[in-house]
Amino acid sequence: MTKEKPVILVTNDDGIHAKGILTLAETVKEFGKVIVVSADRSYSAMSHAITVKDPLRIKEVEERNGIHFYQTNGTPADCVKLALHFILDEKPDYIVSGINHGTNSSTSVHYSGTLGAAREGCLNGVPSIGFSLLSYDPDADFSESKKVIRSVLSETIKNGLPSGTFLNVNIPESKKLAGIKHCRQGNGKWVEEFIEREDPRGQKYYWLTGHFKNLEPEAKDTDEYFLEQNFATVVPCKIDITDFETLNKEIKYAL
Amino acid sequence: MTKEKPVILVTNDDGIHAKGILTLAETVKEFGKVIVVSADRSYSAMSHAITVKDPLRIKEVEERNGIHFYQTNGTPADCVKLALHFILDEKPDYIVSGINHGTNSSTSVHYSGTLGAAREGCLNGVPSIGFSLLSYDPDADFSESKKVIRSVLSETIKNGLPSGTFLNVNIPESKKLAGIKHCRQGNGKWVEEFIEREDPRGQKYYWLTGHFKNLEPEAKDTDEYFLEQNFATVVPCKIDITDFETLNKEIKYAL
Repeated sequence: MTKEKPVILVTNDDGIHAKGILTLAETVKEFGKVIVVSADRSYSAMSHAITVKDPLRIKEVEERNGIHFYQTNGTPADCVKLALHFILDEKPDYIVSGINHGTNSSTSVHYSGTLGAAREGCLNGVPSIGFSLLSYDPDADFSESKKVIRSVLSETIKNGLPSGTFLNVNIPESKKLAGIKHCRQGNGKWVEEFIEREDPRGQKYYWLTGHFKNLEPEAKDTDEYFLEQNFATVVPCKIDITDFETLNKEIKYAL
Repeated sequence: MTKEKPVILVTNDDGIHAKGILTLAETVKEFGKVIVVSADRSYSAMSHAITVKDPLRIKEVEERNGIHFYQTNGTPADCVKLALHFILDEKPDYIVSGINHGTNSSTSVHYSGTLGAAREGCLNGVPSIGFSLLSYDPDADFSESKKVIRSVLSETIKNGLPSGTFLNVNIPESKKLAGIKHCRQGNGKWVEEFIEREDPRGQKYYWLTGHFKNLEPEAKDTDEYFLEQNFATVVPCKIDITDFETLNKEIKYAL
């Protein structure tokens, strides 16, 4: 029996009320049946964390415009696991995560809950894509994002994704994008700027903040470069992180 | 001015009282000056999560056998950031994380707080290594682990590590290891086995548990294979997770 429409699981790390996930869910609904499973709070910078020491719960919240919304108390990666195990009748055809309110380009991919969910989908054999907008504004303008989502999901439906590969899509907040570039992950790092304060008992505490530093400012083939040029970027990312170049050096470790 | 001894930052995801971190700190002390900075609780499966919505705190706990111990309320990656920013006078020469009580081989690297700390060290330009023992026993036998730590750290001091590469070391719990293998990350996944219960109010909740499935049981060059053969394994891991094979397909995304 052929299915009429693909089943698309939508998740994020900002919760089900974020403008980003609503935009994503409405846009991918043009392609199939959509189920939203997300956290009951914001889980920014949760990376690929999963919950092993606390019980997990699932709550069916509502059905709106043909989309079912579920909340869990888990991380983005937990949401994918719970959806696959308890909520969906069958394995979804695609998992999309986002649209994150904030960049996940370059090495930010490693901190991102949005991309943690996409990687979890990929580990479960489902073609998975994480979308992020380069704006932290809760009311950000996602109008160009919809075009990017349609393009990237269409290509993914047409060509599939290799097993063990997921996509990291970043989108400048722009009234008119220059295009979409398939490119490599740039090299960069977050430079910490801790804000130091004192609590009423005289104890110091610190807020983690910082700015991103592009460590390859001359490179013209990275996501960082193309984002600066007003392109959306698509970086294909691997589950297998082995450094084969170093491996081929055949270093011998004696016992 | 040449430094007398290298400075080695030690962290983990099980807290400063775990047998694993004490074994690691005592062993690497043979190579340099050791500072331990770890979390005030267990942070298993925290991946590369960082704390952006809560204030962070640091507490100097004690000095024992020439080793200074600090606790923070942050994740393993936070501990690295806090140590670099507030605790250490200068950038450490090496960062070692672990010894984790439990495996981080194959794709478990993505869930691991131990490896999240090592990746954070690598992002900060410090040669970094995560160590894990294939036993969840809090009183596990780490005697062979010490030999592995000495070997891998010696080689790292001798040869350095490429920028953007960190090491994922896994060690079987064995009275006598067969040796140490430099090898690639195996492909596998955790198969969830949620335990379903009901709380006193009749609401369902779930405990996440499961078992690891080797998806390449025939392969004889993976960490999973060599661990089964009683070898410790060293997988060089990359920060850059771009899938260049897929990238070279030159897929065009229309806007």
